[in-house]
Amino acid sequence: MNWMEVEQLVRLALSEDIGYRDITTENLIGPDLRSMGVFYAKQEGIVCGIDVAERVFSILDPTISFNILKEDGDLIREGEEVARITGPTRTLLTGERVALNFLQHMSGIATKTNDLVDRIRHFPVKVVDTRKTTPGLRALEKYAVRIGGGSNHRFGLFDGVLIKDNHIRAAGGITEAIQVLQRRISHLSKIEVEVENLEQLREALSAGADVVLLDNMEPDMMREAVKINAGRAILEASGGITQDTLVEVAKTGVDLISIGGLTHSANALDISFNIISLKD
Amino acid sequence: MNWMEVEQLVRLALSEDIGYRDITTENLIGPDLRSMGVFYAKQEGIVCGIDVAERVFSILDPTISFNILKEDGDLIREGEEVARITGPTRTLLTGERVALNFLQHMSGIATKTNDLVDRIRHFPVKVVDTRKTTPGLRALEKYAVRIGGGSNHRFGLFDGVLIKDNHIRAAGGITEAIQVLQRRISHLSKIEVEVENLEQLREALSAGADVVLLDNMEPDMMREAVKINAGRAILEASGGITQDTLVEVAKTGVDLISIGGLTHSANALDISFNIISLKD
Amino acid sequence: MNWMEVEQLVRLALSEDIGYRDITTENLIGPDLRSMGVFYAKQEGIVCGIDVAERVFSILDPTISFNILKEDGDLIREGEEVARITGPTRTLLTGERVALNFLQHMSGIATKTNDLVDRIRHFPVKVVDTRKTTPGLRALEKYAVRIGGGSNHRFGLFDGVLIKDNHIRAAGGITEAIQVLQRRISHLSKIEVEVENLEQLREALSAGADVVLLDNMEPDMMREAVKINAGRAILEASGGITQDTLVEVAKTGVDLISIGGLTHSANALDISFNIISLKD
Amino acid sequence: MNWMEVEQLVRLALSEDIGYRDITTENLIGPDLRSMGVFYAKQEGIVCGIDVAERVFSILDPTISFNILKEDGDLIREGEEVARITGPTRTLLTGERVALNFLQHMSGIATKTNDLVDRIRHFPVKVVDTRKTTPGLRALEKYAVRIGGGSNHRFGLFDGVLIKDNHIRAAGGITEAIQVLQRRISHLSKIEVEVENLEQLREALSAGADVVLLDNMEPDMMREAVKINAGRAILEASGGITQDTLVEVAKTGVDLISIGGLTHSANALDISFNIISLKD
Amino acid sequence: MNWMEVEQLVRLALSEDIGYRDITTENLIGPDLRSMGVFYAKQEGIVCGIDVAERVFSILDPTISFNILKEDGDLIREGEEVARITGPTRTLLTGERVALNFLQHMSGIATKTNDLVDRIRHFPVKVVDTRKTTPGLRALEKYAVRIGGGSNHRFGLFDGVLIKDNHIRAAGGITEAIQVLQRRISHLSKIEVEVENLEQLREALSAGADVVLLDNMEPDMMREAVKINAGRAILEASGGITQDTLVEVAKTGVDLISIGGLTHSANALDISFNIISLKD
Amino acid sequence: MNWMEVEQLVRLALSEDIGYRDITTENLIGPDLRSMGVFYAKQEGIVCGIDVAERVFSILDPTISFNILKEDGDLIREGEEVARITGPTRTLLTGERVALNFLQHMSGIATKTNDLVDRIRHFPVKVVDTRKTTPGLRALEKYAVRIGGGSNHRFGLFDGVLIKDNHIRAAGGITEAIQVLQRRISHLSKIEVEVENLEQLREALSAGADVVLLDNMEPDMMREAVKINAGRAILEASGGITQDTLVEVAKTGVDLISIGGLTHSANALDISFNIISLKD
Repeated sequence: MNWMEVEQLVRLALSEDIGYRDITTENLIGPDLRSMGVFYAKQEGIVCGIDVAERVFSILDPTISFNILKEDGDLIREGEEVARITGPTRTLLTGERVALNFLQHMSGIATKTNDLVDRIRHFPVKVVDTRKTTPGLRALEKYAVRIGGGSNHRFGLFDGVLIKDNHIRAAGGITEAIQVLQRRISHLSKIEVEVENLEQLREALSAGADVVLLDNMEPDMMREAVKINAGRAILEASGGITQDTLVEVAKTGVDLISIGGLTHSANALDISFNIISLKD
Repeated sequence: MNWMEVEQLVRLALSEDIGYRDITTENLIGPDLRSMGVFYAKQEGIVCGIDVAERVFSILDPTISFNILKEDGDLIREGEEVARITGPTRTLLTGERVALNFLQHMSGIATKTNDLVDRIRHFPVKVVDTRKTTPGLRALEKYAVRIGGGSNHRFGLFDGVLIKDNHIRAAGGITEAIQVLQRRISHLSKIEVEVENLEQLREALSAGADVVLLDNMEPDMMREAVKINAGRAILEASGGITQDTLVEVAKTGVDLISIGGLTHSANALDISFNIISLKD
Repeated sequence: MNWMEVEQLVRLALSEDIGYRDITTENLIGPDLRSMGVFYAKQEGIVCGIDVAERVFSILDPTISFNILKEDGDLIREGEEVARITGPTRTLLTGERVALNFLQHMSGIATKTNDLVDRIRHFPVKVVDTRKTTPGLRALEKYAVRIGGGSNHRFGLFDGVLIKDNHIRAAGGITEAIQVLQRRISHLSKIEVEVENLEQLREALSAGADVVLLDNMEPDMMREAVKINAGRAILEASGGITQDTLVEVAKTGVDLISIGGLTHSANALDISFNIISLKD
Repeated sequence: MNWMEVEQLVRLALSEDIGYRDITTENLIGPDLRSMGVFYAKQEGIVCGIDVAERVFSILDPTISFNILKEDGDLIREGEEVARITGPTRTLLTGERVALNFLQHMSGIATKTNDLVDRIRHFPVKVVDTRKTTPGLRALEKYAVRIGGGSNHRFGLFDGVLIKDNHIRAAGGITEAIQVLQRRISHLSKIEVEVENLEQLREALSAGADVVLLDNMEPDMMREAVKINAGRAILEASGGITQDTLVEVAKTGVDLISIGGLTHSANALDISFNIISLKD
Repeated sequence: MNWMEVEQLVRLALSEDIGYRDITTENLIGPDLRSMGVFYAKQEGIVCGIDVAERVFSILDPTISFNILKEDGDLIREGEEVARITGPTRTLLTGERVALNFLQHMSGIATKTNDLVDRIRHFPVKVVDTRKTTPGLRALEKYAVRIGGGSNHRFGLFDGVLIKDNHIRAAGGITEAIQVLQRRISHLSKIEVEVENLEQLREALSAGADVVLLDNMEPDMMREAVKINAGRAILEASGGITQDTLVEVAKTGVDLISIGGLTHSANALDISFNIISLKD
Repeated sequence: MNWMEVEQLVRLALSEDIGYRDITTENLIGPDLRSMGVFYAKQEGIVCGIDVAERVFSILDPTISFNILKEDGDLIREGEEVARITGPTRTLLTGERVALNFLQHMSGIATKTNDLVDRIRHFPVKVVDTRKTTPGLRALEKYAVRIGGGSNHRFGLFDGVLIKDNHIRAAGGITEAIQVLQRRISHLSKIEVEVENLEQLREALSAGADVVLLDNMEPDMMREAVKINAGRAILEASGGITQDTLVEVAKTGVDLISIGGLTHSANALDISFNIISLKD
């Protein structure tokens, strides 16, 4: 990850929460009081974002000591500790919520991804994410998908070519669109085309598409698509696939299954933070 | 809302997605081609964020025309249109995903809030949010809670006093903490204290707490708390309350029920965007 | 205070002063020369901003050593030293003016506040600030008011409700305005209303105002207001109160006296900085 | 002025005041209500910052109409109007305080400068400012000095050479310091040296100083300095000069009198803003 | 291009040049004087950056009128006009240098690229750029390469995989490196490997490299590489190729020739700006 | 230099190159692998920017060790080492290109400047730069000019007065323009006027210009100008002067020769970076 950008995001989140000052903590807690804090799970899942949580506190006070007990990607069971932190009580109280908001959000995505990946672990297919992410958090959310065992689709509009329905119409057809892009894009980019039926699939393959996105197809049609493709292009199943339909889609023989819900509808993982004041 | 800050967030989200350029669209679509696009619901829910969606496109191109068909707070049924936009095809294609990411996320929160509020609409109790929000999006998420019929708790650490467990220990007790804060905080702030049992509640009331947060109490204990309180302080129920336990909590007579899941675990509302190319 | 934001402000001030380089110092002073510098008072007053001054230098060079001799809030007499700093001569010369600008400005406000607070120390009344602050410096200026013994009114438009004359007219009356806000604002906010006469005061009290601002009233009318209020609401005297009228206002029995001049018209406290070059 | 930077500062000030939202105005005033507002003086003085005030509102809402009645530099008497603004009531209420904070602060500096300049208008001497400005506001404050009839000293460390006491010691003497700088600085820069006595003055003149700052000298010594100088260098009187000593210093025949108090200790000019709701 | 980011860069460049104010223009030219300005070439070349130049002025003053006479990519001969602008004289004088700095720099790159592309226009080979760009200007420089007829290599470290010498050693060999990346990268990315000899080329091809960079090879070895490759991978010649050796390299049959000098060593194209004051 | 601003620029350059992550390095290289890297010259020249290169890596990882072997301004011959760095292999691979881009660009300018300065080292004339710099890099480029032995002209529009052709016409003539500015500018600024012929020169001298820019004059006319000037003003030759005409211009007796090509058309100096993996 680009930690310069993560740090910007953490500062944004801290400013959002603290504003000009933490009126409860600053008025109640003396600057010299020190405490120890513990992050622990209240629910089973995959930990993700522990380094981001550390950064939250170290930005507030570089002298804090942060002891990571579970690395990103580790399974954690209810009641288990994730990390311990020691430092000024004010810093712990002021940073707690922001650290948890990152940690719970990222762990929620890793956990959801892990669950879906696990359901189809016996099939030669990858679970990939989409661009349906929370504004501003894409790098962290796509990282969480990787930690959960999923794979990343393109990051944004700049690092992958995906010709959609609307592009096709504007360009005058699948073949035309692929030909234009073959001339213009970088030699390091592949071309992916979205198709809605088997006729479009055949055209995309003939025109030399590297990847074909099968949009909202029924499993039977996907199976047929796999046959027609015969290993030429990479096939991505997409559109409304949930945990209920996942295995059925995996059985069709597609190479990739993309799921927007990995990032736009994962529940936060329940992680808590307890502070124990220290005597001097 | 502070639209200067919303605009900063929209620019951040656009830069995140577009990077240095949209390689598919710029290479395929001529700059003079114009289209009309339609946002429509694929799922019933409460619309929220339509002005933010408009801003996404108007930042890319101030000349676009955006026609809002459903205002924030309106109920929308599957298939109904939310808004229509006309402008350069490039702008529509490049802005589509970011606009949807805001709209789906905010509508998801409004819809979830609305559902919970509706379940207890016959009780004199408010549903309030928490600080368990997505980093950077708090203003939008708390707005979505209001649009869904909920109420806002404090925004951050700067605009409300909430004395938690750890503050109490550090200050030497509930009474001491309240007394210190009564002297130091602004005359416009009330004081809220978190209590875990009825003894703490009694102490908080004696010390003059304006609001008491009943943390993780069983409904029976809450009912007892309501009796003890006898209308003196505002009572907030908090901790692991879900749609299943909501009505039971509402029946206890508390004034407020706070639910972190409004913001940290709402699923995106399924909204789509279709583009229709225009002939000149 | 939120030191992340203070640091941003210090960087802004340094860039404003240094621009692309300090042409006198860089051309005259070698990078290896070291000096000691002393901040000392040329006028009696209350020190405020010494940590900000330290930050000015530590941003330029994290290796400087800064020895604070007077803490924020300490009284300092003419000729007394406030702090000593040791480090590269270049750093001291380049940072000197910005450090002084913060220190003199904040100490000026603390000193003025302290003087006014002292004049009415035998009355049960608080001196509070206003939003009449220097753009960009509000957090520092409100901090200086606290250091001088004053209290803070709301920080901005987001953390306190104050219904002014114009709000009242737009809402259709004091009672209506209070009722609307009672329904809509956070359970942690109190409601303050500005009134110009005793009739308005009575209406505000009936409607349940928590705080009433007595705008530009004569002492006699304030005294009458205190009687009418009979301890129900907190009463704030406001409008053109100076050191000359302060005691008279305090005698009326109001709870708070707000003074814009604490922040918008405090003279800088005269503090100087002397550098002594060190031999190697 | 560089309006790009002024606009940044205005946005900073607005965000500081509004935070995430104006809770009073947004909850009370409907978005469609429109009003007219009037800025008027409650004290005689020189208007300064009216364009900045306009920018405050136009950033919030580009559709507002702002009618300037007094330009920067105009004398305004108590009760006279400065400008009228028409637009959404919300915008007027939310922007009022920030607009006034700029306007009162800048007008205060212009007024103070004008007063001092006027006292010595019959002498061939200029009043100049210093770098003793409020952090972040230097461009606006130096603009206000010009509007008040004063002149600007260097803006910062980058656009003028001023060899101070400490530079002299580090460089090994006045002559050495001037010689080094003559070789190194831009051909467009003059060299100013600070001297404390007449011996230093003679050395500075011999070494070719373009400007000499007479630091904290008594009027008699200044007069002697003017004679010694005999028109060779520009002479600047500096150090603790107030309105009481100003005329006496002007009489000595120096070319410039610099006064830190123009910017660090000017009182805000009392300007108010009244809003009149409009019927539709 | 992402115009939000271009605009940020233009604002940065303007602030760098203007600082707090244009002291010559503001002091000499009245705000109401209007002029017409003309950009014209003093040297033959390819125009690039004319929209950026327009943006420079429109940021300073949105009311200026800018008439583009030559589009990006057009050949311009000495003396020909590129664009005409009408607006306040102050705006033209203050923006002139920044506009020219962008225009000359981008046109210089487009012209150099065009010259090289033209030399090998009869060969089936593309000229591509590198990451050897000026810090902060990469998007504009890569755009200029496209305008000059060249193609873009990857933009940065995030949108293309290029396994270099050092990666190979750390991964334990070419085959290992390719295999690891095949598992981990996005399905839309191709893999490029840098090789220094024909043995490495053979290994890269066997391992499935999509693109092979032939680093600093002599033309004879490149020719041999083309034979060995037999059309399997895309071959990129790289390393010290200049206008003198370009044709010889093109003759070897490689697919791409990358040249750092397109961006890091292109001379500015000589373009001037003349202002003609307008009578009212 | 103002290192706060250099650091901002370095961060910008790193973000431009890394984007959300370095997909090759992060996927191939483990976080614990450490390496040593060496910067070395592939071409003779003057080193410049080595501290900036160090900053590139230390921003990515503050623990790296950077050993500078050639200081800025040192001559380096082909094959000689400039610096050695030890740290995580990932950091070295990810930062390499950005560090080189700064180093090569700045060294290229220093080398070109040094070459030109050397050609006229026996004449009493300075080589100065212009404002024809790369947007955003002016401070670094002007620093490189100084390191190469050149002198700086004004940095921007704010720190030097230069009356150009267009200013003259708008002000009504050279004499008028100079008179207006003499009244208005700071006492620390000199006035430079651009003239195109000897008549204008005479007028400028009579009006008291401190510096006169001889625009695009032939050497003979410059020689005549030097005579007319007779030491009164500083004379700057400007306009299309190259290495071929430089000596001839120097011989005319002018004081300064300004050359835009120092910054807008210097070729990058060829410097490379080699990484050697370290065994643990």
